[in-house]
Amino acid sequence: MKSSFPPDPELLALNTVTVREKWTLRETIDGCARHRFRGISFSRDRLAEIGVKEAGKAARGSGLTVAGLWGAGRFPASDRRARQAAIDDTRRAVDEAATLEARFLAIVAGSLPGESKDLAGAREMVRDGIGEVLDHARAVGVPVAIEAQHPMHCASQSCVNSLAQALDLCDELDRGGAALGVAVDVYHVWWDPQLERQIERAGDKRLLAFQISDWLPSSKDMLADRGMMGDGVIELPLVRSWMEAVGYRGFHEVEILSAANWWRRDPDEVLATCRVRHQTAS
Amino acid sequence: MKSSFPPDPELLALNTVTVREKWTLRETIDGCARHRFRGISFSRDRLAEIGVKEAGKAARGSGLTVAGLWGAGRFPASDRRARQAAIDDTRRAVDEAATLEARFLAIVAGSLPGESKDLAGAREMVRDGIGEVLDHARAVGVPVAIEAQHPMHCASQSCVNSLAQALDLCDELDRGGAALGVAVDVYHVWWDPQLERQIERAGDKRLLAFQISDWLPSSKDMLADRGMMGDGVIELPLVRSWMEAVGYRGFHEVEILSAANWWRRDPDEVLATCRVRHQTAS
Repeated sequence: MKSSFPPDPELLALNTVTVREKWTLRETIDGCARHRFRGISFSRDRLAEIGVKEAGKAARGSGLTVAGLWGAGRFPASDRRARQAAIDDTRRAVDEAATLEARFLAIVAGSLPGESKDLAGAREMVRDGIGEVLDHARAVGVPVAIEAQHPMHCASQSCVNSLAQALDLCDELDRGGAALGVAVDVYHVWWDPQLERQIERAGDKRLLAFQISDWLPSSKDMLADRGMMGDGVIELPLVRSWMEAVGYRGFHEVEILSAANWWRRDPDEVLATCRVRHQTAS
Repeated sequence: MKSSFPPDPELLALNTVTVREKWTLRETIDGCARHRFRGISFSRDRLAEIGVKEAGKAARGSGLTVAGLWGAGRFPASDRRARQAAIDDTRRAVDEAATLEARFLAIVAGSLPGESKDLAGAREMVRDGIGEVLDHARAVGVPVAIEAQHPMHCASQSCVNSLAQALDLCDELDRGGAALGVAVDVYHVWWDPQLERQIERAGDKRLLAFQISDWLPSSKDMLADRGMMGDGVIELPLVRSWMEAVGYRGFHEVEILSAANWWRRDPDEVLATCRVRHQTAS
């Protein structure tokens, strides 16, 4: 199963959220280059620091490929106007991704708006919202990646909570196409008994992103207590082998939200550790 | 969908864990009777207070039906001896359930033992463990309910994390039988896009327990921050309607683990609130 261990170091990428507490965007780009990461994924909320165009230019100038752009979606809303605003915003994010020359735009679905308990309704709004941006994404040539988020985020962050559900959306909205795919974040999906089967079902065409971190079994915090690769219980090389078995050759994007630990450390130490753990534990 | 609202008050039951911080077992039994609950489910760790036989006698003497017994299972272990100990313990729990005249014994699967990351291996140990106790459960006449626990508990509490997975175990170990079933706890499964379909698949025969509480969208604590029915985002009447549509007529068992709120309150207030919310929000 662990056919290609250690992984190709050329596939190491960083999601900027991993060092967001200590570094500016420009410092992050420089740091990635210094630590010989090959890819970088941007969080939209930080792009304003230097602007979308400049961020892409700086990344490419530092020898980095822009893996993905994160921070669009969140389609469910209480009224039509707010729903349209989310669609418009996500269309703008498609354009930003194109400007960045990013390989994909990642969608976080959003969930129950306001006081709503209508989970099925929220899921319909997600389907409709993605449907509304897909033509634009096709026209611009930026594939859209739906992130399946952990079920513990179902009420607040995302009502797309399994790879099967995300792939059902792909089949419904983009049958036979390549405009829509999935982002596989091990932290969100490692527990899923169907994980291997759904990665097979996705195939290379639908597998747009692979994010790595680890699940700390002692963790009680749902929001920002992810572990460094190797410090938790996820069989990262096994999951990677499933991705590779269907042809995935994209980046291994480190994304660690860790309020009490990694966000507090010197980002140079964080990135050096990522580099080592990518080789020894991923 | 909400065909039988409000629910039959005669189906209200309490899991003793809901008031475990303030009341002894005997106080809990008396309290349930006083607040006109009809069923009670016991947590095994508290039975020692008065003994299994006496607990069953006291419950029945107070007009309560013993719904279920909780606290067995946890099959994965690092060595053969510890695995056998879990099997032996669960067999004893079957006997205890019989003594209590409980309607079912509930199994919490357990998960990764020690430093293990072998999730597939843990799941095999769970399957094998249940298989080892099933003949005894058949002989004694106590059905075993597998609880599908929330994926956020996958590393530590239970590696059975969806109703589909639990029902796959039923099909594999008890095809066509009635010795094995599932416990549906809304807190653990409310997010599942397959929930309605899997309840249908289970059918009345496999639906041994229905536990209610609520998911608080503001919750950050994975372990003991469940909400009172109506205070969160779960469409309880809708889920109940799915249970009823396939013929489920068992108890609606309140189970609220709430370290910061309900566990601190006067249990008489807690039970009175449960009774109201069962009628108004479940």
